[in-house]
Amino acid sequence: MAVYTQVSDEALAAFLTEYDLGAALSFKGIAEGVENSNYYLETEKGRFILTLFEKRVSAEDLPYFVALKQHLAARGYPCPSPIAARDGKALRTLEGRPALIVSFVDGLSPRRPNVTQCRELGAGLARMHLALADFAMERANSLGPAAWPRLWTGREADADALQPGLAEAIAGDLAAIAAAKPAALNLPRGTIHADLFPDNAFFLGDTFSGAIDFYFACTDALAYDLAICLNAWAFEDGGRDSIDYNFSKGAALIAGYESVRPLEAAEREALPVLARGAALRFFLTRLVDWSSTPEGALVKPKNPLEYAGRLAFHRKVETAEGYGA
Amino acid sequence: MAVYTQVSDEALAAFLTEYDLGAALSFKGIAEGVENSNYYLETEKGRFILTLFEKRVSAEDLPYFVALKQHLAARGYPCPSPIAARDGKALRTLEGRPALIVSFVDGLSPRRPNVTQCRELGAGLARMHLALADFAMERANSLGPAAWPRLWTGREADADALQPGLAEAIAGDLAAIAAAKPAALNLPRGTIHADLFPDNAFFLGDTFSGAIDFYFACTDALAYDLAICLNAWAFEDGGRDSIDYNFSKGAALIAGYESVRPLEAAEREALPVLARGAALRFFLTRLVDWSSTPEGALVKPKNPLEYAGRLAFHRKVETAEGYGA
Repeated sequence: MAVYTQVSDEALAAFLTEYDLGAALSFKGIAEGVENSNYYLETEKGRFILTLFEKRVSAEDLPYFVALKQHLAARGYPCPSPIAARDGKALRTLEGRPALIVSFVDGLSPRRPNVTQCRELGAGLARMHLALADFAMERANSLGPAAWPRLWTGREADADALQPGLAEAIAGDLAAIAAAKPAALNLPRGTIHADLFPDNAFFLGDTFSGAIDFYFACTDALAYDLAICLNAWAFEDGGRDSIDYNFSKGAALIAGYESVRPLEAAEREALPVLARGAALRFFLTRLVDWSSTPEGALVKPKNPLEYAGRLAFHRKVETAEGYGA
Repeated sequence: MAVYTQVSDEALAAFLTEYDLGAALSFKGIAEGVENSNYYLETEKGRFILTLFEKRVSAEDLPYFVALKQHLAARGYPCPSPIAARDGKALRTLEGRPALIVSFVDGLSPRRPNVTQCRELGAGLARMHLALADFAMERANSLGPAAWPRLWTGREADADALQPGLAEAIAGDLAAIAAAKPAALNLPRGTIHADLFPDNAFFLGDTFSGAIDFYFACTDALAYDLAICLNAWAFEDGGRDSIDYNFSKGAALIAGYESVRPLEAAEREALPVLARGAALRFFLTRLVDWSSTPEGALVKPKNPLEYAGRLAFHRKVETAEGYGA
C-alpha cells in the first residue's frame, strides 16, 4: 500500500511518447497492491493504471503475468488489460524499473463481503479458471507445500509467543498435509490466481466487475484457488481473537463456483485438506513478515493469528459439506 | 503521502446517498497531501477527490478552507471545487472524520519545474490573489514570525548537529527579521496560499492548470506568498549539500506574478526579508519534524538543510534585483 518509486513528470512524458495514448492529463500514486508502485494515469485516450515492479516481484516472472492478463482480456474476462506500446511490447522500463500500463477496471473492493458478493466471486473465480484453460504458460507455485518447511523452520518460538501451544498445532498441520500428499491427489490443475482476496476483487454494487493483482498466479490445483477464497472471503472476526466461519458465505462461494464449473468428486473430497493448506500458507508467510518487521514500524504486518484461527476451524472439518458444499 | 483513515465500501455507499452524484464506480486511496487521507472517487457523475481530515488540521479551520475554495471556484479559478450534498452542505462526516468531496483537477505536478512553468506559476499565484481580493473571511498565519521563537527554542543543538555553526546563523536570521519588523512594513495584505510548492500545483504541459491543498492558507502579506514560491520553485540542489538559486526561474516567477499584479514599491523593497523569513519558516518546521521523528521511521522527514542553504543565499541579497525582479 505504498508508492516506492517516484516517477517524474518529464520521465512520464518521455515514456508516453512510445505509446499511442496521447499526453498525460493526471498522474497520482495510489495505495493499491502491496508489492509494487501503482499510479492512476489519465491520458487523452482514457484512464489507466501504471505499475512499476519493485524488487519483490521476480523480473523473470513478469512476461508470464503479462501474458496471463493478455490471455484473460482477449477472452473478455474483466481484468487489467496490458497496453502495448507502438512496437507491440507491453512490458517496458521506467525510472529503472520494469513498467506496465494496463486498462482501468471499474469497481470497489468490499471490506465486509456479503453473501451475494461471495456467490458472485465464486462464479468469477470459476470463469477465470475456464478462461485460462487454454493458457499454455506454466509457473510453479513458489509458496506451495514444498516451501512450507523452509518458512516454518526456526519460527516455533515466534508462534508460541503469539499463542501458547501454537507451534505444536502448526507442526501437526504440516504433518497432516504431508500425509495427505495433496500434490499426489491427482486433482484437475490449471492456472490459478492464488491471491484473490477481497482487496483484489472489484464489485459494482453486488456484481463482480473484475480481478486484479495476478502476481501470485501459478499452475496448481484449481480447487486450491477455491480453498484460498474460502479462507479469504468466508471467515469473520468474531472479536476476542475468535475467527468464525460464515457458513452462508462459504456455501454461496462454493455454489457460485459450481454454477460455472462443478467440482469433481476428488476435488470435493480434497477440499478440507486444501483449505487447511491454504490457511497454513498464509499463516506462514504472515508469521515470517510478523517476525521480521521491527517494532514500531509504520506499516504493521497482518496478524498471523487470523490464520491460526482459520486453521483451528479447518482441523475439525472432515468433508466438503463442512464448508457448505 | 498516505491514507490514514480507511473507508469501507458500505460507509461510502451510505455517504453518497446524501449527494446527487450517483453510485461509486471506483475508489482508491491516493498518495497526495501530507496531512489528510485522500481518495480518488469516481461516480456516475464524474471524477472527484474525497478528503478525510486527520487530526493535524484543526476542525475549526475547515469552514474557512471550504469557503475559500468555493470562493475561488465561483470565480473560475482552477482549484478543487467543494461539492455540496443535497442539503447544501459540503463539509460532512465519514468514518468519524470531517469529510469533503471536491471536483477533480487535471494536471501533473512538476518534479523539476522549468522556467516557463515558473512564469506560469507566478501568474497563477497573482490570479489567485486577485480572485481572493473580495474574500471576506480571515485566518491568522499560525506559522508566522510570532510562532518562530517557540519553534526554535531548545533546537539549537539539533541545528548544530546538522551543520556546525548553524544555530548561531539561525539566531542571526531571527534577530534580523525581528529588526525589520516585516509585520509593520505596511504591505498589501490578503488571502495567501502559503504552501504553493510544486506538488501543490498542476500543469498540463507547461500551462498552469490548478492549485490544490489550501490547508495552510491564511491572511498575510501577498508578497510573502511570492517569497514562499521563490523558495519553493527557484532553488536547485547543486549537489554536495549546495543549494543554488536559479536566477532565470526566479526572475520568470516574479515576472509572471507582475504580469497580473505588479508589485508595489514597498513589496519590492521587502522581498529579501520576506524571502529570508519564508525560508526560516520552512527551516524551522522541518527542523521540528526532523528532531521529533524516531530514527528508522518509514516516512523520512524532509531535510532542514535544504532550507539552511536557501537562508545562506537570502542573507546576502539586499534588493529585489538580487532575485531578478
